[in-house]
Amino acid sequence: MKKIGVGLVGFGTVGAGVVSGLQRNGDLIAERLGARPVLRKIADLDLDSDRGVTVDASLLTRDASEIIADPEIQVVVELIGGTGAAKSVVEQALAKGKSVVTANKALLADHGEEIFALARENGAGIYFGASVGGGIPVIRALREGLIANRIETVYGILNGTCNYILKRMEEAGLSFDDALAEAQEAGFAEADPTLDVDGYDTAHKAAIIARLAHGLNVPSEGVCIEGIRGLADEDIEYAHDLGYKIKLLAIIKRDGQDVELRIHPTLVPVAHMLASVNGVFNAVMISGDMVGETLYYGRGAGREPTASTVLADVSDAVLDFASGAGGGRPVSGSGSNGVRLKAMGDVETRYYFRLSVLDKPGTFAEIASVLGAHDISIASVLQKEEQQVGKHVSVVIVTHHAKESRVVEALEKIDAMGIVGAATIVLRIED
Amino acid sequence: MKKIGVGLVGFGTVGAGVVSGLQRNGDLIAERLGARPVLRKIADLDLDSDRGVTVDASLLTRDASEIIADPEIQVVVELIGGTGAAKSVVEQALAKGKSVVTANKALLADHGEEIFALARENGAGIYFGASVGGGIPVIRALREGLIANRIETVYGILNGTCNYILKRMEEAGLSFDDALAEAQEAGFAEADPTLDVDGYDTAHKAAIIARLAHGLNVPSEGVCIEGIRGLADEDIEYAHDLGYKIKLLAIIKRDGQDVELRIHPTLVPVAHMLASVNGVFNAVMISGDMVGETLYYGRGAGREPTASTVLADVSDAVLDFASGAGGGRPVSGSGSNGVRLKAMGDVETRYYFRLSVLDKPGTFAEIASVLGAHDISIASVLQKEEQQVGKHVSVVIVTHHAKESRVVEALEKIDAMGIVGAATIVLRIED
Repeated sequence: MKKIGVGLVGFGTVGAGVVSGLQRNGDLIAERLGARPVLRKIADLDLDSDRGVTVDASLLTRDASEIIADPEIQVVVELIGGTGAAKSVVEQALAKGKSVVTANKALLADHGEEIFALARENGAGIYFGASVGGGIPVIRALREGLIANRIETVYGILNGTCNYILKRMEEAGLSFDDALAEAQEAGFAEADPTLDVDGYDTAHKAAIIARLAHGLNVPSEGVCIEGIRGLADEDIEYAHDLGYKIKLLAIIKRDGQDVELRIHPTLVPVAHMLASVNGVFNAVMISGDMVGETLYYGRGAGREPTASTVLADVSDAVLDFASGAGGGRPVSGSGSNGVRLKAMGDVETRYYFRLSVLDKPGTFAEIASVLGAHDISIASVLQKEEQQVGKHVSVVIVTHHAKESRVVEALEKIDAMGIVGAATIVLRIED
Repeated sequence: MKKIGVGLVGFGTVGAGVVSGLQRNGDLIAERLGARPVLRKIADLDLDSDRGVTVDASLLTRDASEIIADPEIQVVVELIGGTGAAKSVVEQALAKGKSVVTANKALLADHGEEIFALARENGAGIYFGASVGGGIPVIRALREGLIANRIETVYGILNGTCNYILKRMEEAGLSFDDALAEAQEAGFAEADPTLDVDGYDTAHKAAIIARLAHGLNVPSEGVCIEGIRGLADEDIEYAHDLGYKIKLLAIIKRDGQDVELRIHPTLVPVAHMLASVNGVFNAVMISGDMVGETLYYGRGAGREPTASTVLADVSDAVLDFASGAGGGRPVSGSGSNGVRLKAMGDVETRYYFRLSVLDKPGTFAEIASVLGAHDISIASVLQKEEQQVGKHVSVVIVTHHAKESRVVEALEKIDAMGIVGAATIVLRIED
């Protein structure tokens, strides 16, 4: 059986999972693959921490360049994260014709274009299954399983931290702050939760999906990225009353040469499968012109699930070298196909508004008239509180499809009205 | 860009979908793949029927051996079905070192061992994603995405016909016969529905999964295969009252060297994701030791979804030839690993019994005593009907985990009792 050398750069949580997975299931992988991945070197600046896995000291180095230089290592696994040292390791490995396996979503979201080009130029393979969806083989589905499809829509719950917080707000009636604190205590949220709760992590993953699905090189500006920070429990309750759950969704839709890409808290009908994806689980719903609707569900993060996908990618790379094929499946370039990001103002969807208005006769008529003047048609209205003449009360309005730019204009006018006590809360709905 | 020749044997529903898919999305596939599949020949005995797709007459032949003999054809797509002519075409193509793409579950379930061996001996690729789950890339998940995992459990809703019938019985209160007739009218069931409703189609697919997951060569005898024919709407109602839906599941569980494999109508908790898989949709839940729980969902049959997966497999085979790798990913042999089918009598699960018993004092005590004597512990009892002393009434008993062989023994005794008016209905429960 052929043996293919593997070098690991970054011996953190996922790195340790990769090593222990290889130790535990390496024989099984080799039997299934007909070739054997052999871990030849592990580089990390910290060689002293206990990772819960025993490694021969001769494998360890603080110098990643030893892995790049080693002719016995054909596959480099980058698990440093970020766009600094990781970028340099990935580039050097590809330039040497080694295959690269990475879980680095930030790197591929920000520098995917140049990294994929570098891989192509050097006939080197690049595998990044674990950059989206953790243990769920969703990148593989997109690159391979659905290759014959024009991708029409993608809906993704891609961040377990947010999904956990939303679940706790929903089931325990916690405020966002309390649910975040609980998630941090449970180890499901970082001390600095910005990347997760403000939607950036989801945006990185969505950018990778949009590139694979549509060849879109996502620009750094102009993408709607709204996280769940500050989401009011009140809105989760109103959504519930209206028959919806709130999920942080990445939404990617193709419309001719335009690609709509947006990340925001979204009202999803309770009966929809995405509504029953709870806690740290992730799910991605992908529709294609041939296959119709498909869904992929599993753990979107964590040491072992993520290592599962890293090892699947390592196996691909090993098979490429063992069979003599080399660089594996290419990632198409982008930009040449004329596909572009749709301006957010042109997006049409359904809306949920929660207005804080003075409870007095004529108020609703005034608001309805502004909405009507902006082609925004009301589907339903919910006002739960008892009448409190002269005070501000919450009124929830659900609209039919309307254009984002018109909604922005209308709400500017509405929020400037004397009868309105606070900025209107806006959420979007998918059915 | 390299061109790889493809020959199609079997120009039926799915075959026509493959041809129209290639016509519509061939450029997209080529761009994503960096190589182009070119359809060089189509063989079918019937060249006259209208398939809703226009093909150059020069491509058509009635003689499949032209495809086998053509040195310009490297990839043979077998869509004849069955184990007669299809087997011969697959064997001849593999013997010539061509890659084979097939959706033929019966062939692989019955003759997988020899066909995979033939592929290995000839260094030929064999791809069969469309044999299980239609458009859902579940075989790919199992062979590739989860390659690093010891597979622990698989639960599959693998037959859309059954799932449609069950849904209609549930939502419209139809009898099995009426729901079947409706499915036949809607084109979701064959005139002879045996393969589907009696569980054989599901069993074929489960055999393929069990081979991939565990290297199990499923024997032709000893597998529990129970379909949904004759399932009473009464049981669907009782299950509903108990918080369950009834689904035809393939269940595959690993227990040391034993593999439990069974196909039967199963009570699934309503809150479980599999319970919300409705109509013609399929879903497979796979748990592995690294990844935990994952789920794959989509259309399990139909012209375009199945063709989507066939074309994904064709793309794999094309990439193998374009890269010079040849035979692609091997399918491990079986038998050498000591894995064996667990005897059904040794299976332990929870049970649902519906007894028809005389409604008189002491009846329940008699039954409970027989169950107790067979180590069958009662979890709950449901008796909806009003007391009708001297008449037979339905009593539903839900058990804790019990051993199948003990259940069989106990029910033999119970059904022989004078107070029992009809054979007890037995269903199994998964939680």
